Amino acid sequence: MAILLFTDFGSGDIYVGQVKAVLQGLAPGIAVIDLLHDAPAFNVRAGAHLLAALADRFAPGSVFLTVVDPGVGGARSAVVVHADGRYYVGPDNGLLSVVAARARKSDCRCVLWQPPQLSASFHGRDLFAPVAATLAAQGGLPEDWLVPSSVLKVEFGGDDLPEIIYVDHYGNAHTGVRARGLARAASLVVGAHRLPYGRVFSEVAEGEAFWYENSQGLVEIAVNCGSAAQLLGLKIGDEVAWR
Amino acid sequence: MAILLFTDFGSGDIYVGQVKAVLQGLAPGIAVIDLLHDAPAFNVRAGAHLLAALADRFAPGSVFLTVVDPGVGGARSAVVVHADGRYYVGPDNGLLSVVAARARKSDCRCVLWQPPQLSASFHGRDLFAPVAATLAAQGGLPEDWLVPSSVLKVEFGGDDLPEIIYVDHYGNAHTGVRARGLARAASLVVGAHRLPYGRVFSEVAEGEAFWYENSQGLVEIAVNCGSAAQLLGLKIGDEVAWR
Amino acid sequence: MAILLFTDFGSGDIYVGQVKAVLQGLAPGIAVIDLLHDAPAFNVRAGAHLLAALADRFAPGSVFLTVVDPGVGGARSAVVVHADGRYYVGPDNGLLSVVAARARKSDCRCVLWQPPQLSASFHGRDLFAPVAATLAAQGGLPEDWLVPSSVLKVEFGGDDLPEIIYVDHYGNAHTGVRARGLARAASLVVGAHRLPYGRVFSEVAEGEAFWYENSQGLVEIAVNCGSAAQLLGLKIGDEVAWR
Repeated sequence: MAILLFTDFGSGDIYVGQVKAVLQGLAPGIAVIDLLHDAPAFNVRAGAHLLAALADRFAPGSVFLTVVDPGVGGARSAVVVHADGRYYVGPDNGLLSVVAARARKSDCRCVLWQPPQLSASFHGRDLFAPVAATLAAQGGLPEDWLVPSSVLKVEFGGDDLPEIIYVDHYGNAHTGVRARGLARAASLVVGAHRLPYGRVFSEVAEGEAFWYENSQGLVEIAVNCGSAAQLLGLKIGDEVAWR
Repeated sequence: MAILLFTDFGSGDIYVGQVKAVLQGLAPGIAVIDLLHDAPAFNVRAGAHLLAALADRFAPGSVFLTVVDPGVGGARSAVVVHADGRYYVGPDNGLLSVVAARARKSDCRCVLWQPPQLSASFHGRDLFAPVAATLAAQGGLPEDWLVPSSVLKVEFGGDDLPEIIYVDHYGNAHTGVRARGLARAASLVVGAHRLPYGRVFSEVAEGEAFWYENSQGLVEIAVNCGSAAQLLGLKIGDEVAWR
Repeated sequence: MAILLFTDFGSGDIYVGQVKAVLQGLAPGIAVIDLLHDAPAFNVRAGAHLLAALADRFAPGSVFLTVVDPGVGGARSAVVVHADGRYYVGPDNGLLSVVAARARKSDCRCVLWQPPQLSASFHGRDLFAPVAATLAAQGGLPEDWLVPSSVLKVEFGGDDLPEIIYVDHYGNAHTGVRARGLARAASLVVGAHRLPYGRVFSEVAEGEAFWYENSQGLVEIAVNCGSAAQLLGLKIGDEVAWR
């Protein structure tokens, strides 16, 4: 059992610690794990696909606190999604919609509960964290905290996203395409580049670009001992295709 | 109960882990939370104001281990400040002086205790961490570890600091001015820019700059879906005024 | 007792959290401490020397999970080194060879155990983490997980490395040379620069470069209130000498 954090709060910034202090106060003794705090800022769709790929291997009962929320303080609701046994707390802006759409069984509830003090810009700390902590500590939420039934307002659907959704610190470019079932003979096309498949870095010559199935099950563009993002000029949002 | 870390050790660097190993050895089972490890380097005054804003919401009994310490290894003392029920361990270079000046009740004691091995450059690990861990684990320090009574040698006072004291990873520029009581009709002036008030990001057009009360209670300069620091050319130390 | 992480996974990236989730599942309640996640990428020798300097102060029984592994997915083995009472789990590519060579007593065993699911590129999560967690939780590994006896395939030896092995976020350049016993009168030569010894930052004029014994016991090149890397144009791999 753990609370998993997936945000764009910045791993080196002042926000994560404030969230953890709330979690520690309300759910002491429950492990809190930083999954990612540098989710693509302002890009909710990319974040939704990355979250779905990462969440897949976690045990039932896990609680995800998820925030990529450019609209914080505006009209969007807070939601709790219960998908394949895992809980997700976050804004109703599409971030949880890929996880929900892909689940064999999922259920969505809007959050009615309001904290005594709600800042305009930090619902991660003031609203989502108390909800996630309560959920983790008590295994559920009081019924009057939630709208009896609801649907997500923003839906991206469960299909693959043939775009770059994340660039890691090695310069590897992760796409929103699940690799399972893809023909290894196919070349990946991104911009003016056409890249062959490789099973793993060490099977490709140093400095050479290729695509492979990464450890999250996604198609990833990489360069052995180098930065694919730099070498090929890749960035989040670039489209990919197969030929 | 938790130990809160506020330092300029760098969130991705080799220093924080060494501090945590000491804390874990001397105060096992006590939560350690990273508040900030990228405090403005070499700028103790900015750090002092940021710390005061962040610390305000923490429960009595919390222990802050605070290090922004360009003078490490020189003549400055180590101090323990007990302010409004919270403990702060750090160098006597002004870093704790804003917290102390603003407290309803505060008390300052120099640290006499010396570790068996004290490196010249890493008192955070060798001196401050054992003091903070002992304080957290035992709820106080042996009397002979402390000078019976002392005052801070460097005092910045408790007044607001009308300067940019922190730029976060979104590019938002935090000032040392507390927002409570400020007229929302006033414009903030920074460099050649004059910025209106906005309650929250989503009430402002995309790409537009404004000032608002941030989640730490400070005046902050921001741009909806953009970087204020980049757009307006802001950096730590820039002065702000109202008109 | 703790599990110490030393990797090049990036402190702000998606990899560390996945490793921690595995550790938390298999060794709940055991402290996990991030020693470094920005070890020099692709530079195993530099990482090996930095690890040896950092590990030296940790208590017997500590378990180090170490990954700088450009050859992941290729032919190299996983190894467990037991050196002076501490355990090290990592790839057999030289990363653990400095620690092993310097130990008064050390022992090396290849790992036979394979996880049910092994990704091509993330042995840190799939292979090394379960081994480290089992070791920490049970104080040892089942005999059939290990080759009865083995030697490291790649050996860098235990001698000092007169090169820059790490540049920290202050811009201080750490070398692979242990400072104990070095004559303080000697000047350090790096590129076209000749630098005097200083005991500590505050004994040197602001903006001045010097060398000193850092808190890991290594020779380090620093500038008081400035960045040595920037001022002197230093980078990992640059050679140093004494004159």
